[in-house]
Amino acid sequence: MRTIKKVLVGQSGGPTAVINASLAGVIRQAHEHDLKVIGMRNGIEGFLEGRTANLTDLFHPARNHHTYGKQAVELLARTPSSFLGSCRYKLPDYEKDLPFYQHLAHSLASLDIDGILYIGGNDSMDTVEKISAYFAANHTDIPVIGVPKTIDNDLEGTDHTPGFGSAARYIATVVQELARDAEVYGKPSITIIETMGRDAGWLGAASSLAREKNEQAPDIILLPEVAFDEERLISKIGALFECKKSIIIVASEGVRRPDGSTLLAKSKVRMDAFGHLADQSGNALYLAELCQKHFDCKIRGINLNSLQRCAIHAASETDLREAWQLGAAGVDALLAGKTACMVGLQRVSDTPYQTEVHCVAVAEIANKVKHVPADMISDDGCWVTEKALTYLRPLISNGNHEAGSQEGGLPVFIPKLSQNNGF
Amino acid sequence: MRTIKKVLVGQSGGPTAVINASLAGVIRQAHEHDLKVIGMRNGIEGFLEGRTANLTDLFHPARNHHTYGKQAVELLARTPSSFLGSCRYKLPDYEKDLPFYQHLAHSLASLDIDGILYIGGNDSMDTVEKISAYFAANHTDIPVIGVPKTIDNDLEGTDHTPGFGSAARYIATVVQELARDAEVYGKPSITIIETMGRDAGWLGAASSLAREKNEQAPDIILLPEVAFDEERLISKIGALFECKKSIIIVASEGVRRPDGSTLLAKSKVRMDAFGHLADQSGNALYLAELCQKHFDCKIRGINLNSLQRCAIHAASETDLREAWQLGAAGVDALLAGKTACMVGLQRVSDTPYQTEVHCVAVAEIANKVKHVPADMISDDGCWVTEKALTYLRPLISNGNHEAGSQEGGLPVFIPKLSQNNGF
Repeated sequence: MRTIKKVLVGQSGGPTAVINASLAGVIRQAHEHDLKVIGMRNGIEGFLEGRTANLTDLFHPARNHHTYGKQAVELLARTPSSFLGSCRYKLPDYEKDLPFYQHLAHSLASLDIDGILYIGGNDSMDTVEKISAYFAANHTDIPVIGVPKTIDNDLEGTDHTPGFGSAARYIATVVQELARDAEVYGKPSITIIETMGRDAGWLGAASSLAREKNEQAPDIILLPEVAFDEERLISKIGALFECKKSIIIVASEGVRRPDGSTLLAKSKVRMDAFGHLADQSGNALYLAELCQKHFDCKIRGINLNSLQRCAIHAASETDLREAWQLGAAGVDALLAGKTACMVGLQRVSDTPYQTEVHCVAVAEIANKVKHVPADMISDDGCWVTEKALTYLRPLISNGNHEAGSQEGGLPVFIPKLSQNNGF
Repeated sequence: MRTIKKVLVGQSGGPTAVINASLAGVIRQAHEHDLKVIGMRNGIEGFLEGRTANLTDLFHPARNHHTYGKQAVELLARTPSSFLGSCRYKLPDYEKDLPFYQHLAHSLASLDIDGILYIGGNDSMDTVEKISAYFAANHTDIPVIGVPKTIDNDLEGTDHTPGFGSAARYIATVVQELARDAEVYGKPSITIIETMGRDAGWLGAASSLAREKNEQAPDIILLPEVAFDEERLISKIGALFECKKSIIIVASEGVRRPDGSTLLAKSKVRMDAFGHLADQSGNALYLAELCQKHFDCKIRGINLNSLQRCAIHAASETDLREAWQLGAAGVDALLAGKTACMVGLQRVSDTPYQTEVHCVAVAEIANKVKHVPADMISDDGCWVTEKALTYLRPLISNGNHEAGSQEGGLPVFIPKLSQNNGF
């Protein structure tokens, strides 16, 4: 087993509010074990171009007096988006492009790298798998470990992914606020709030937590897991208007028709490097136009866009803690001689919320998608079950960091006026 | 002078994050003086339909055991959007519609109302002026006082309006976050963030506070006060691309061409009850399409939409405190026998930040718009001056409520990696 003295770490894929907390966990844990830490700039893509950052110089308490202050690692952990920069770069199979991997091996050797940590989602675990497969075939003893992150929460092998809890908390919070805002004129209105979630509906599902705070919103959640049914939606909205005036719909960006096509015109759709549909965003606009055809009322489409993935100001403290924990666990896994693995969280208990860190073979999870399972979706397909709420609740918790009027990670508002509070 | 025993209070116009803090101030101060408080539901419009709320029943500490808990007024203050509901309702001139005012007078008499407080912006001050003008002409001794609120900060007669500081803090915070998010791939990109601000650019200007936190963003601020110049914008972006990759543009929804027309096609524009242009929103989309024609890079348009006016989760504590203070001051003004006035804030000092409450005749301010003055806008028209920053800074402050990595009301991030931190 190789002695680890110097670790290379990269961040890849879409950023999150807490992805730097994982990097902070890596840096702190590595320094605790007297390891040096080198960062890839813009992930594997930048590293192969020779772009790195000496994170030990920048963050080691004994060395950082020129660059960052004493609390630098803590400040890093609360800085959103990938500090090292990111990439979306699909590695070739090593059988098909050996020179690519030889260049990689040479770059690693020239920096005396003893182990690699890659912080990312599904696509990044594909990168971990490919590099470790090449190493295995070539008897290179550099371990490669994945550290999960994605706001989409669509990664197998972990109870949930760091980044999801903060995005979920942000979404539930703004749905609470927008629901109050939408009903202010007491006139019929439809508000469509679009969340991310290209393949899986976890972010949309998380908006259900808003309704737990007596907010009576959202009314409808549209998930990619449930085939979009235009008639059913219009009929559901019509029924809701019988008993309330302000309808709040949360729609995942990945909502699709029964034939798998996205709601938007095909001309707007293109593929990214991993073959995913890009530019899906716009469901809020599409649904707003659809509703306009059927209902004569105020209709508003709100796309939460990148706001939801960088909102460190609304981060979940549980999420921040776990992101840090998994970064540190990545270092531990390297030191334990593991490779071709991803560190993940296993839930031991919902109440009190308890998790354990474990390692899963990256071959079992790369390029898979963890969907919202059927038993977390209500029978009518537009709400979630108690099982989903039980799963979601602890992830947005702020624990001991709750401010005055907060409960379970969400703001608490004064109950609404009822019809019989007047004269 | 009439003895005040029962106060009627209404909320009107677009909601804000802290408009209920003003209502809370009214309720607490009224109860301190043993006054009863009746709420108009949906402003003057709902009141004229006979819809009210007995706020003393709901919120008096001795009476609220059935409805709300002991901390009810504090919880109300931290609940966004108008608790009483709102309206956009333009009153007729009393010379032209006497029956309207007779109906109003009858409704007030039937509830034994001794004084009226109306929490709102420009249009609401028009309501205050018209009612008080009718009363003056008819020797009715019911005083009418306006309490300012508007996230747009475009109201004369006060240093700034409650609601603005919280929206400003929200905008500067998310601009900091979005700027970090936008540069993650290290590739050229343009991000256009649209703020509210139909007539005045205060909200857009407030995004300048983000750059103070070493975030190097936004790069360009487009204000309604500066005629939109397409060529200048494109040339400015081109120049910025010479020295940086990720360009952040903040555009007020009210940005107009030199001929006064909005950026959007006229077909999308309609007038609201007060003759304002509605549906202006969409500048981000327009500018994104414009940039797409000139630059081959990733372009993203983000409309902050209603998010910015209900984000109590990111409220400024200074703003919350002042909103409450002005609600209480409204009650004091009624008790002091004032009428046809608006209570407002006068700034005594920037550092330390100090204000005093004063009263201004509503006739002097109704239907006027306070624009960002020329000496707060930089010579090139797309940034603000130090005078603007000095004005803005204290308004977003969280004072003693600052959490760990906050400074001046905004999050503090780890400084960015520079080019020479590698090997």
